[in-house]
Amino acid sequence: MGQEGPVAGAAASTDSVFILNSLLFLVGGFLVFFMAAGFAMLEAGLVRSKNVTMQLTKNIALFSLASIFYYLIGYNLMYPLGTWLSEGVLSGVWGPAVLEAVGVTAENADDYGYAATGSDYFFQLMFCAATASIVSGALAERIKLWPFLAFVIVLTSVIYPLQASWKWGGGFLDQAGFLDFAGSTVVHSVGGWAALVGAIILGPRIGKYKGGKTVPMPGSNLALATLGTFILWMGWFGFNGGSQLAMGTVGDVADISRIFANTNAAAAGGAIAALLLTQALYKKPDLTMALNGALAGLVSITAEPLMPTLGIATLIGGIGGMIVVLGVPLLDRLGIDDVVGAVPVHLFCGIWGTLAVVLTNPDASLGVQLYGISVVAIFVIVTSAAMWMLLKATLGIRVTEEDEIYGLDMAELGMEAYPEFSKG
Amino acid sequence: MGQEGPVAGAAASTDSVFILNSLLFLVGGFLVFFMAAGFAMLEAGLVRSKNVTMQLTKNIALFSLASIFYYLIGYNLMYPLGTWLSEGVLSGVWGPAVLEAVGVTAENADDYGYAATGSDYFFQLMFCAATASIVSGALAERIKLWPFLAFVIVLTSVIYPLQASWKWGGGFLDQAGFLDFAGSTVVHSVGGWAALVGAIILGPRIGKYKGGKTVPMPGSNLALATLGTFILWMGWFGFNGGSQLAMGTVGDVADISRIFANTNAAAAGGAIAALLLTQALYKKPDLTMALNGALAGLVSITAEPLMPTLGIATLIGGIGGMIVVLGVPLLDRLGIDDVVGAVPVHLFCGIWGTLAVVLTNPDASLGVQLYGISVVAIFVIVTSAAMWMLLKATLGIRVTEEDEIYGLDMAELGMEAYPEFSKG
Amino acid sequence: MGQEGPVAGAAASTDSVFILNSLLFLVGGFLVFFMAAGFAMLEAGLVRSKNVTMQLTKNIALFSLASIFYYLIGYNLMYPLGTWLSEGVLSGVWGPAVLEAVGVTAENADDYGYAATGSDYFFQLMFCAATASIVSGALAERIKLWPFLAFVIVLTSVIYPLQASWKWGGGFLDQAGFLDFAGSTVVHSVGGWAALVGAIILGPRIGKYKGGKTVPMPGSNLALATLGTFILWMGWFGFNGGSQLAMGTVGDVADISRIFANTNAAAAGGAIAALLLTQALYKKPDLTMALNGALAGLVSITAEPLMPTLGIATLIGGIGGMIVVLGVPLLDRLGIDDVVGAVPVHLFCGIWGTLAVVLTNPDASLGVQLYGISVVAIFVIVTSAAMWMLLKATLGIRVTEEDEIYGLDMAELGMEAYPEFSKG
Repeated sequence: MGQEGPVAGAAASTDSVFILNSLLFLVGGFLVFFMAAGFAMLEAGLVRSKNVTMQLTKNIALFSLASIFYYLIGYNLMYPLGTWLSEGVLSGVWGPAVLEAVGVTAENADDYGYAATGSDYFFQLMFCAATASIVSGALAERIKLWPFLAFVIVLTSVIYPLQASWKWGGGFLDQAGFLDFAGSTVVHSVGGWAALVGAIILGPRIGKYKGGKTVPMPGSNLALATLGTFILWMGWFGFNGGSQLAMGTVGDVADISRIFANTNAAAAGGAIAALLLTQALYKKPDLTMALNGALAGLVSITAEPLMPTLGIATLIGGIGGMIVVLGVPLLDRLGIDDVVGAVPVHLFCGIWGTLAVVLTNPDASLGVQLYGISVVAIFVIVTSAAMWMLLKATLGIRVTEEDEIYGLDMAELGMEAYPEFSKG
Repeated sequence: MGQEGPVAGAAASTDSVFILNSLLFLVGGFLVFFMAAGFAMLEAGLVRSKNVTMQLTKNIALFSLASIFYYLIGYNLMYPLGTWLSEGVLSGVWGPAVLEAVGVTAENADDYGYAATGSDYFFQLMFCAATASIVSGALAERIKLWPFLAFVIVLTSVIYPLQASWKWGGGFLDQAGFLDFAGSTVVHSVGGWAALVGAIILGPRIGKYKGGKTVPMPGSNLALATLGTFILWMGWFGFNGGSQLAMGTVGDVADISRIFANTNAAAAGGAIAALLLTQALYKKPDLTMALNGALAGLVSITAEPLMPTLGIATLIGGIGGMIVVLGVPLLDRLGIDDVVGAVPVHLFCGIWGTLAVVLTNPDASLGVQLYGISVVAIFVIVTSAAMWMLLKATLGIRVTEEDEIYGLDMAELGMEAYPEFSKG
Repeated sequence: MGQEGPVAGAAASTDSVFILNSLLFLVGGFLVFFMAAGFAMLEAGLVRSKNVTMQLTKNIALFSLASIFYYLIGYNLMYPLGTWLSEGVLSGVWGPAVLEAVGVTAENADDYGYAATGSDYFFQLMFCAATASIVSGALAERIKLWPFLAFVIVLTSVIYPLQASWKWGGGFLDQAGFLDFAGSTVVHSVGGWAALVGAIILGPRIGKYKGGKTVPMPGSNLALATLGTFILWMGWFGFNGGSQLAMGTVGDVADISRIFANTNAAAAGGAIAALLLTQALYKKPDLTMALNGALAGLVSITAEPLMPTLGIATLIGGIGGMIVVLGVPLLDRLGIDDVVGAVPVHLFCGIWGTLAVVLTNPDASLGVQLYGISVVAIFVIVTSAAMWMLLKATLGIRVTEEDEIYGLDMAELGMEAYPEFSKG
């Protein structure tokens, strides 16, 4: 068998393009999957030890429910299937997702020119699940398990997919020219709005605000929180890089490379900005702010990780880091108790990142970006407020005062996360 | 140099197929490698703090020994080398694994039509090591270090490779039509049988069963256990996806995509089923059961992750999750002390998953599946019982009562995992 | 559209080669990125609980600063840009890194025959950051935050890139025939020298050496340390495998496969050698030595992970593991306090690995290897000593005695890592 050198200037075959695009979704997908572990560790590290088991339970349950309900309802709702419903508002139809047959060939692949349906499904599912993960941290330490999970079901089967279809399903926001590469709005602000509305309706933890003062309730395990942040950072390479949606050409892989480098730069900018700003404001650098700063940088670059230079990406992330340092006490002054800082990170920086697209992408319009942000905001605020109110009126969403003080782990689950260590 | 668009309908070149197949093994391999960390964290989280250092030591040592002895003996024993020994029972010959030469070309690659030998070796090694990891959790908190490691050596150099050759080396089980895609039987039930036999011979921990009652001995760190579960879940994409063994065609990558999606669905089904069933049975959802439920779902789908639809995969996993919730107290009623639930997860669900192949794969026969399960069961029970008995009669396998109560960390290693926190 | 079978003996197209090479850098890069989490967990686990928050802060800050300063200065300093400065000593020019334009094509890609600039940048950055990570562990528990970070800036913008250019930028060490595949010298010994010099200038922790005796200061969380080790181990597949720098041919992917298998073998050899040697010397196997032994094996194989057989790789790693077991008490006898064993692991084994190249690579010369080791040693010792002295004379590098005893977390940061558990 003869081997020749690479064929000069020859393009990859269509088979190769299909394979490489699918591979991008699979690798990107498992990286974004791992963000579920990142959120779990971040949140477990930032709650008090008496609520750690509950937070872990919520995280594994929400990811699993997202997997089930995005399959049952969400995926087909998100992508247009050529029905009358898909004209701009409701892009798909209800119904479980269906993968391609086993062993497809070029002739019968659903989308031979693009990628395997299963790989696309796998990748998209992870974005839906990430949206739900954002909510759990903000509402920690006082929300009941099952009502929270009921919200997750609605979020992952309807709220997320429907608004995602408006942009990523080719719906009216996409047609209006709204730009959101990997989801500063579509994923992060959606999780952020749902979390903010939930936190307001749920109310703050007992003792969090006393006589106009904010009482610190330090996280129980900063090593876990740091681990979670690093895991999220790594997962974000898949989140943003995979959102190029193609790896089968020279241009696509070069763009993915830019995206990886820019994503990293924004995270670094966010972490350092938060560290410097906390040093300046409080005379002590703050680790949890640096962690949230890195995440803020990542959210901020997510709407446009491709066009910026490395320097601009660092600055966009850096501004995100500053937003978080200022946003956390702002929420506290408003009496809104967001346990892990999810709202400043995912909502405030999601908005900032969506607006920042206009800085580097000549196709972006500030008006259209504001329009997209607003439409999604109104939709998510209304639907999630309705859902939270409904849950509050029926199941109730908050544990009893007694249980909250005792800790959700023993009260609701009868199981401590660190039974031998904790002073509770 | 001119760049054209992808060549319409053109297949990937043989070089590309070789590269992509090898890449699948490398990526799949590092994901399965990371399962070693997953097992270590899961087990470290589920034992009491006085035995954590020992459990960590066992995990890093067993993986390292698996690497050495699969190289020295196992790999060549597993794969037929064309000798008289390879006729159906003993598929290979003793002797260290040999990689391809540096810088092979199409002409002199061992298997140009397939993949690099080194990539295959790397991938297969990780399955062997995973089998050993399964054993360590079940026997935790009372087995001596060195006898346990002696067992690992025999398991990874002989027991695992020999029976694996019967299916994956093209041996008699393969020829009989036994189907086990990624190892519900070949990996998980093998680890499970070795663990079960070991747990029976070793006996329960002191104080575990008192007057017919099971005394709970809660794990010391559920955050670590959750982290371990998420890591294992991620690693399973490599475990099942890599077992497609090829990524160089449209059909192969589409199948891998199905496998990723189905693997995730089964894990989700297992976690939710366990959560719901513990809520129903005990009125409190149980995090450790949800974690084991996810793993149970993963084991259950491993024998056939390709053929099911997403819905069937979710159900197969869900049944796995229920098996674990029922299997854990069953073992306890039998007085068999499996510290982390490895036997319900890997053995019970390994059997269930192997049987479930008949639900979706028309080539599967229930009789042949039962035959394969039984042959492997008898072989592993006999060989591992012999080995455990031999170790018990010579080195002794159990620490002294005093050491067990004091904790293995201080007694055997003189080193606590959490010297500043633990109340012991 | 017709699909054919793979074209027999056909080489991959140039587009495919470019894509696959870039993909190697991206996958290798995110694996090496994750080593930042590995270092953070290893170090957080090996320091006492009163200094954990500080150690985590240093780790996230140093990685972020490396990202910024390698971008601003380091990358272009490391790679020749065809100026007069690049003649052998100073390979590049000052100035921020510039990525390829968005959506490049074969015609205008900077390096169409090779890989995307962004992917190369991303991969190389991670090596620079790893070098800085090595330093933070050795100096833990008594160095001030900001002076440490100032050192990191100099290390990542000048010291690392400059010496790296001598080998990997095609500079005079490369031209002299110095061989260092993935950086036993270029990365690990550089970090090791900087750490050693820093540790000497900084002095030991209070109470570490009393009357000629070494007082053990056990790490606070061995589960985290073990997790960190496994993460580093996984990251090393990207570190060494990605250093093949190409994946677009049969020979390249087969070589990467060898490297993965050898890297794993060396780690296993190191862990087992350390376990056996501590058992022999101290009658108790030592987990922290086994962890450092695995890392030692990894460092030892890094200068030549391709040429050895699996058996030789295991032995090279095993010798590394023994070096660590002997090196740790040696440093203590010299009164040099290296909190996590970074100097034995990265420096001693970096030297050993660089020398071991001559065992398997016929192109290597012992003299040239010693020459390369020495040149890098002198350069890093001089520059980092100058920098440490300058920092000592200006900002001061050591916290007050009071703060050190109280713990850096409360003293410098006002934030405990485990506020509810720690006895301090």
